[in-house]
Amino acid sequence: MKIFDQYQTMVSQAIEQYKFTNGPSELYEPINYIISHGGKRLRPMMVLMACDIFGGDMKKVLKPALAIEFFHNFTLIHDDIMDEAPLRRNQPTIHTLHGINTGILSGDALMIKAYQFFEDLEPELFKKCIQIFSETGALLCEGQQMDMNFESRANVSYRDYMLMITYKTGVLSAAALKIGALIAGTSEEQAQLLYNFGLHTGIAFQIMDDYLDVFGKQEQFGKKHAGDIFENKKTILYLIALKFANEEEQKELNFWYSKKTDNIDKIYGVEKIFRRIKVDEKVQRLIHRHNEKGQNYLKKIDLPIEKKQPFIALTNYLLKRDS
Amino acid sequence: MKIFDQYQTMVSQAIEQYKFTNGPSELYEPINYIISHGGKRLRPMMVLMACDIFGGDMKKVLKPALAIEFFHNFTLIHDDIMDEAPLRRNQPTIHTLHGINTGILSGDALMIKAYQFFEDLEPELFKKCIQIFSETGALLCEGQQMDMNFESRANVSYRDYMLMITYKTGVLSAAALKIGALIAGTSEEQAQLLYNFGLHTGIAFQIMDDYLDVFGKQEQFGKKHAGDIFENKKTILYLIALKFANEEEQKELNFWYSKKTDNIDKIYGVEKIFRRIKVDEKVQRLIHRHNEKGQNYLKKIDLPIEKKQPFIALTNYLLKRDS
Repeated sequence: MKIFDQYQTMVSQAIEQYKFTNGPSELYEPINYIISHGGKRLRPMMVLMACDIFGGDMKKVLKPALAIEFFHNFTLIHDDIMDEAPLRRNQPTIHTLHGINTGILSGDALMIKAYQFFEDLEPELFKKCIQIFSETGALLCEGQQMDMNFESRANVSYRDYMLMITYKTGVLSAAALKIGALIAGTSEEQAQLLYNFGLHTGIAFQIMDDYLDVFGKQEQFGKKHAGDIFENKKTILYLIALKFANEEEQKELNFWYSKKTDNIDKIYGVEKIFRRIKVDEKVQRLIHRHNEKGQNYLKKIDLPIEKKQPFIALTNYLLKRDS
Repeated sequence: MKIFDQYQTMVSQAIEQYKFTNGPSELYEPINYIISHGGKRLRPMMVLMACDIFGGDMKKVLKPALAIEFFHNFTLIHDDIMDEAPLRRNQPTIHTLHGINTGILSGDALMIKAYQFFEDLEPELFKKCIQIFSETGALLCEGQQMDMNFESRANVSYRDYMLMITYKTGVLSAAALKIGALIAGTSEEQAQLLYNFGLHTGIAFQIMDDYLDVFGKQEQFGKKHAGDIFENKKTILYLIALKFANEEEQKELNFWYSKKTDNIDKIYGVEKIFRRIKVDEKVQRLIHRHNEKGQNYLKKIDLPIEKKQPFIALTNYLLKRDS
């Protein structure tokens, strides 16, 4: 989207500018590889946007924006090892190319480098940002652990799930916005409003991802239709279905989710229950609720409405997907 | 040693006090496990000692001391995965007990928690400490990568090796001392002298470890005699031997170090060359040189000699081992 182009360009240029050129190359080349292969780079963009709407110094916020992107990529490197994922962004993952040891160590180094990218800030601001950064990092680890726990746990509550996606997806976007706002020199209160906007928008985005897995237009989404059902993932769709299912439907859901199979009957069976229970509508309502919460926080921010346009555009971009 | 008892007690109590009690337990229990199983806890003790000799507030330095210990343990958790080590301090390693995924993630969380343990410091001091901490962390990763590279590299230079052990062993002890001194409110210059003392003492300690592997009294050292030779590790002993070996000896060394074997002839063969070349004397001189460098830095510190006694005692404890 045009409104984002300037920020995206800034992020790309900064990534190019701050490539790691020191050795050992076995450690830093994999880092350059994953960072340069991009992805949407939404999080660093959000840091820049947040700083910009509060009239901050864009030069000052560039390295902290990269810090957020580095941190995100550090979690991807380690998550890909844990998930045994062969591909990321259509490229071989680092541990696939260089082995698990390099994956672990490159991830570690990238995390530490992320911390270093705040060091140009003055001490007061440095401390504020690092505190948010560490708190966010700890929550991300907790979210990842919860996600792994769910795989082997029979009963995952709706509350557990919401907490997991809040930690795994919501907090880093929220932190990106808050850090950007603080670097612009805004008040803690205003920055927190933007944080809360980011948190709920991030949650809505993640629920949307679950939704699109089953109800999206697959040809654009680029993923296997209903991959989460095949994988027995306890997504919000499954949890809502289980909650509203009658005894017979519960039995059928439990039956399908207890076996790993590529049998297409599984998808038909599960989706029939999803439709009967109107899971799609219920999930859409949930997305709407979090989106609305997010927008309400955005409204409370003490800035003219036209300043907030980039964030409204961002929300639309994230949540008006149909695939 | 008696002089260290008070510090050791403080460290133990702090570890007990700051145990992780929040969830998910699958993430934090392994952390509590490795932290509570101790080891020598030299690094946090060094933070306390450094603060103490400069008359600092011991309450203020306690959590930063734990940060150093946490960081050290984070590296151990990840290194043990990379080395496929089944045991650490005679206890099963975390990845052995809980799998590689838990090892990776617990290590990550522990690193982040380490950063958080500086947060009680005022912004100026916080920033100084975090900068040292991150710089040290990055060097540790680089040292670990160099160490892994050496395994498959035919020619490792003396300089490469010294850099590797400086990064892997020297910098964290040095950083521990500097951070303790800075928290006590001493000048950058004085803190740096203590850093340099720690760096060279740490290097001497690591070379001593290599030395004792072959020339130590094995019954106390608790390790397999000449384990490094069995493992073809390119230690300083090997590098010095190779440097001073004649053509025939070089051939024999290359022969033995190109094969993994438990054949006792290998040890006899290699040790004979080591003795002929007087590797033991040469390595002792190297240890002595770094120890002396360290002591010279210690001397330059602007404190009465009796204040420095704990560090002289520490050096003796570390370097006067015969096993």
